[in-house]
Amino acid sequence: MSRGSALGSSGASELFQLLRDGAPRTRASLAASTGLARSTIAARVDELMRLGLVSPVADAASTGGRPPSQFALNPSARIVLAADLGASHATIAVTDLSGTVLAEHGEPMDIAQGPESVLGWMVDTGLALIDGLGRDRHELAAIGIGVPGPVEHSSGRPVNPPIMPGWDRFDVPGWVQQHLEVPVLVDNDVNIMALGERALAWPQVEHLMFVKVATGIGSGIISGGLLQRGAQGIAGDIGHVRVARGSDVPCHCGNRGCLEALASGPAIARALREQGVAANSGNDVVELVKRGDIDAIQAVRQAGRDIGEVLTACVSLVNPSVVAIGGSMARAGEHLIAGVREVVYTRSMPLATEHLAIVQSAAAENAAVLGASMLAIHHALSPEGIDALAAR
Amino acid sequence: MSRGSALGSSGASELFQLLRDGAPRTRASLAASTGLARSTIAARVDELMRLGLVSPVADAASTGGRPPSQFALNPSARIVLAADLGASHATIAVTDLSGTVLAEHGEPMDIAQGPESVLGWMVDTGLALIDGLGRDRHELAAIGIGVPGPVEHSSGRPVNPPIMPGWDRFDVPGWVQQHLEVPVLVDNDVNIMALGERALAWPQVEHLMFVKVATGIGSGIISGGLLQRGAQGIAGDIGHVRVARGSDVPCHCGNRGCLEALASGPAIARALREQGVAANSGNDVVELVKRGDIDAIQAVRQAGRDIGEVLTACVSLVNPSVVAIGGSMARAGEHLIAGVREVVYTRSMPLATEHLAIVQSAAAENAAVLGASMLAIHHALSPEGIDALAAR
Repeated sequence: MSRGSALGSSGASELFQLLRDGAPRTRASLAASTGLARSTIAARVDELMRLGLVSPVADAASTGGRPPSQFALNPSARIVLAADLGASHATIAVTDLSGTVLAEHGEPMDIAQGPESVLGWMVDTGLALIDGLGRDRHELAAIGIGVPGPVEHSSGRPVNPPIMPGWDRFDVPGWVQQHLEVPVLVDNDVNIMALGERALAWPQVEHLMFVKVATGIGSGIISGGLLQRGAQGIAGDIGHVRVARGSDVPCHCGNRGCLEALASGPAIARALREQGVAANSGNDVVELVKRGDIDAIQAVRQAGRDIGEVLTACVSLVNPSVVAIGGSMARAGEHLIAGVREVVYTRSMPLATEHLAIVQSAAAENAAVLGASMLAIHHALSPEGIDALAAR
Repeated sequence: MSRGSALGSSGASELFQLLRDGAPRTRASLAASTGLARSTIAARVDELMRLGLVSPVADAASTGGRPPSQFALNPSARIVLAADLGASHATIAVTDLSGTVLAEHGEPMDIAQGPESVLGWMVDTGLALIDGLGRDRHELAAIGIGVPGPVEHSSGRPVNPPIMPGWDRFDVPGWVQQHLEVPVLVDNDVNIMALGERALAWPQVEHLMFVKVATGIGSGIISGGLLQRGAQGIAGDIGHVRVARGSDVPCHCGNRGCLEALASGPAIARALREQGVAANSGNDVVELVKRGDIDAIQAVRQAGRDIGEVLTACVSLVNPSVVAIGGSMARAGEHLIAGVREVVYTRSMPLATEHLAIVQSAAAENAAVLGASMLAIHHALSPEGIDALAAR
């Protein structure tokens, strides 16, 4: 069984959970919130200040006499690394404890090079970014990593990832910790994009679904404020749900009529080529749409309807209040979303869509890095993470 | 913000969380698990014993000298009421703190009589059952109620329930508490069936989907061990997802091709009537299947395939390890499940079905009452519930 932090070594970590929202508090308000004795509060605040995690805040509204000292989370107390390892591109960033990016580097990178090559690059690049900022490597609190495949959450190992040869069951945290002695959190790329989108645009929303439409199609689901991973870590894997319109279209998975075979970037480009339009990739489709090409606009809208057909089932099942559409094809603008909305609002039960927003991703291309940062920060600021920092 | 129970009035409730699994523990093992001082443990165990929630357990393996005293949850310390209010039938039971039914009564009941009539019957019948057992009304710790419609979880109010006229936004807990001064937990019937199924047959499973196939079709989803309710409390509402085969079949919701319009009990009966088979209801269909009627067996199998089509999307999205099929139509036996399996195993990605069991409900007609009991027990034995018992 797990051991409550309030009962653990320091006790400071539980107090810190009140302060991690960033709002300043006095010793008196902390005592009132927790029921702890003032002397206990004082000792624990001192410990958090010693760790640098909490700083005094100037008190604007003094009531006369000596003002009560206020304390708040100090976002610059530590840094985290956030890595977005895609199929053909990798980005790594250093952020502070609020998720603000301090430095970032991205470059083409083939995930099929295998874990040691890609993770080696990630570690080297991350350390170079930290050095470049003039920060000390000991300030690093955790690292969050997104990968383009299913991940066993408890171990951080990719499981049967179809486009990551050499990564199956590879101990990502174990390998990285040979070089960086910090907690390593690994998750599926679309899952962390959901975390990033929520952190940026919908911090108060408890039920959010993020849909990535790019070379593949997938989704990340946050329900009751928690990322849903499922029994095998593949919850949200909607790319191979069948769409009625496409019953004769073969998919690379071996089935026919999968959403991904109809509405992904390459699928839209292929459909356009069959109409005689020069489009070799999803990016070409986006460019055609931006230039106002009617065929491309119609094809993207139809892809939106196909995605909407699958999302109608998702909306019934998950009952989110926000569906955010991201990924490279979302750059085609409102045409994709319009198709999604057309079908979801027509086909869903009124109660499911009464308060449902279907929107373009606000985090856009930053969603994954921001989400990886959130994954690392959530862990670093958890009772367990704070206890670990205190014990170092 | 909520206040941790460890910081609350008694502290005993947190200790109790270790004991609620029913396994016996010594004072020493409790001290080791919590890091609390032996004197604190002793005081809190005494308080739990005073409440009757914890009892001494005879220690079989004495190591000589005075044996260490062991303690465990006492399931008979309190009772709960569990009510399953269906569209046309209601059942209420008294259970102990392990969910064992001590007394039960069911009778035809029209939910459309409205809340005061139905809840009044529920309260009267529940109290009569308690009296009949010779138990004291003060032993009642909580009441769990399942209703056939969406419920706002935080308030226990039904929200736009389509088949419950007069119940919209009715304050069920407030009304019941005028008669029974205990916590009142209300949830959707299919949600509580998922809780009941898990408690009876899959206590270790974290990701389970319960599908009810009866006059309507709905599902309850447990992910990461938690019931998923969604933003409006309607997560799992799969009855109106479109099935490709049925694009011309009108549904009572106003759309066409809904799963419920093709695969519910009345829908199967209607399809059989169109073939000239005398079947007026889902029950007639079940009887025909049990007598080996080929038309009925084929119709049920096709309904299973239609349900399987929708469940394929659900399995991709939620990634459960168990899908349990219940409701009155599940009494048609393996034919329904066979149709579901046929489609889900054909259409899903291998990783999603590698460890997926699709099974008939083990709790069957007891799922709802058992789930309502679990809803009440989970609350009664939570830190909040224990603190409330201690304060009475």
